[in-house]
Parts: sequence; C-alpha cells; structure tokens
Amino acid sequence: MLEKLKVSTHQRCQLIDITKEIQTLIKKHKVKQGIIHIFCPHTTAAVTVNENYDPSVQSDITDTLSKLIPHNAGYAHTEGNADAHIKSAIVGSSRTLFIEDGKLAFGTWQGVYLCEFDGPRTREVWLKIIKEKE
Amino acid sequence: MLEKLKVSTHQRCQLIDITKEIQTLIKKHKVKQGIIHIFCPHTTAAVTVNENYDPSVQSDITDTLSKLIPHNAGYAHTEGNADAHIKSAIVGSSRTLFIEDGKLAFGTWQGVYLCEFDGPRTREVWLKIIKEKE
Amino acid sequence: MLEKLKVSTHQRCQLIDITKEIQTLIKKHKVKQGIIHIFCPHTTAAVTVNENYDPSVQSDITDTLSKLIPHNAGYAHTEGNADAHIKSAIVGSSRTLFIEDGKLAFGTWQGVYLCEFDGPRTREVWLKIIKEKE
Repeated sequence: MLEKLKVSTHQRCQLIDITKEIQTLIKKHKVKQGIIHIFCPHTTAAVTVNENYDPSVQSDITDTLSKLIPHNAGYAHTEGNADAHIKSAIVGSSRTLFIEDGKLAFGTWQGVYLCEFDGPRTREVWLKIIKEKE
Repeated sequence: MLEKLKVSTHQRCQLIDITKEIQTLIKKHKVKQGIIHIFCPHTTAAVTVNENYDPSVQSDITDTLSKLIPHNAGYAHTEGNADAHIKSAIVGSSRTLFIEDGKLAFGTWQGVYLCEFDGPRTREVWLKIIKEKE
Repeated sequence: MLEKLKVSTHQRCQLIDITKEIQTLIKKHKVKQGIIHIFCPHTTAAVTVNENYDPSVQSDITDTLSKLIPHNAGYAHTEGNADAHIKSAIVGSSRTLFIEDGKLAFGTWQGVYLCEFDGPRTREVWLKIIKEKE
C-alpha cells in the first residue's frame, strides 16, 4: 500500500526529520520484519539519512551543498531554482531502510530527512512497506 | 524477472529520459501495485529522477557536475574518464520507484534518467519489478 | 533476515570492496533470483557501486570528494567530522542490487564499496535479501 506523509518546510534549504512519522507508520501496519522504501515525488527536494543528534549537521549539509551549487550561477533553466533540481538529482529521490522487531533498524545516531532545496512549501514523502515472511 | 533496456547516448555527458520505456515494461508485466528497482550496470553512468518538462534542467545537471568534477584534473586513473567514475559513484547506480494503478507513481514533473558521463555509447538499464499482493 | 557484515577501515577516507562478502552471503542463503538491499548504519560512511579493477579509481573518488568538501571549512558541527556527515548524506546509505543465477547481477567492472569518510574504524554493512518466486 502506498502511504503519503505531508511535510511543511520553513526555509528555502532545510533538512526536516521525518523519522518519528515513519516509525508511527510501521507500527500502524504491524510489520515486524521487512523493508521500507522512501520516495520523494518532487524534483527540487530529496530524501537522505544522517545524524539526528546535533542539528548543526543538518545546516552544514545544506550550506555546503549551496556553496558547491549556488542559487544563481548562470543556469540555463530560468525559473530560479536550477540549483534545487541539481541538488535533488545528486542527493536522490529514494532510500531503502530495514524494519526489525517492529521498528526501523537504524544506526544509533541516524534519522531520515526530507531535503528541501526550494522551500518553503508543503511537500510529500511517499512510502511502501514490503513485509518479510515471519 | 530481470529486464534490460538498451539506451543509446549521443554526447559525452547527457541525461536520457527512459520514463516511457519503463511505463511500457510495467504494462507488459501487468503489475497493478508494486515496486520497480532500476539499476545501472556501468561504472561511468548512473540513474536519477528529475524534471522532465524543461530540457535545460538536464543540461544544468550535467554542466554543474562537470564544473565540480572536471574531465581532466590530475586524476590517478589514467584512462581519461576518472571524472565519469566519480560522478557515477556519487549520483548512484540504483533508484527505487513505486507502481500504482498499473503505472509509475510519480510527481507531476518527474522522469527517470540514465546519466551518461562517458559517452557516446550504447548503455543498459536493468529493472526488476516486485508485485504487491492485490 | 537481517545480515550484518563487519568491515575494518584503515584510513580516514577509503573505499573498501565488500563484493566477495556479499557473494558469499547470497550463496549461504541459496537465493537464485532476487533483490539484495545494502544499508550503511553510520552517519559518516556510505555505500556505493563502482569500478573494482583499477584501485586508483577508488582514491580518485575519495580525493575528489575531499577537495569539494574539505575536512576543515568552518563547519557548524564541532566534532571535526562535519565533512564526513556531508559526504555520507550525498553519496547515500543504501543501494539496491539484483541477484540472478545465484549471484550478483553486475556489470563487468562493478564492485560494491563501503565508503569510509571518518576512519579508521570498525564499521558494519547491513543486508536484506528478497527472494523472487522461482
């Protein structure tokens, strides 16, 4: 079944932690063991996994991406968000995570993030769970 | 079942839209709901998802990658395509997409792309479909 | 079933080939056809797929990433490894590969790599296999 999360972003470039929402979804589906696929249906946003302890890591990620791929740099695409498309294509629209014992099987410090590169907006994150035989 | 698409590229660096070919494959397999895994079996190419409306987005992506990772920059690998390997490792060889109602579940402007970084060549894109119980 | 590989890294930034270990795991599970999901449970490491013939490709990848995202560049995160978090978020924590005829379905020159960005350390790579009906 396709599940959709709604995510509000508040800045042009921002990482939003969606780990809790994903845990809630796994509980709702009563999956003990399996795979969860995470997909971002936007061409100026992405999904990634990284540290969810020190929030400065999140701004280091968006700031460094913006240094490498500036907002304005003579792009051919004239809608003013070419940088966001490029970041989205590189960071990627999908990640695959594991479910064990009814929750995300994760490293100690990991969280799942929607990467907003052309906000603020209301975004969606789509998810599909594949159950393993128990 | 493993499916293979053949894709001809025409420039050294180029994004090639393979969305239609993937839609055709989904129809052929008569899958209503599921997952489609897309894999690029080359070390100097990649797959990504991005805007399929304005083609200038595609050239902005390849041009910006080439600015950051130039064709010649004193690389250790001496075959003249180290840049292509690096781009391939970063953009990535796999993406996972969703199937709903017998077609790709996509954002309004999304397309799937083979990213050629060392063309022109004939490339392959490999695909596997996982059906969900209906 | 969740499988865990242990990987020792020997430098701060290094790609470690884990293809053989993955092939061994596929044999152990007696899977003829399917999908293997590879996940890196660390926020300063990643997984990728690239050439496993000329080792200079691996150092070109880590060296170029370090040129673009230097070890020290006034990051907000003060643990001295912000660069590793950024590289990890961009290269990515997951890749999906195919199994055919009881082994990895791969391009001629492809290998799977743990990307160490803040070593040396002992790392883990997690794997899940989804069997296709035969």
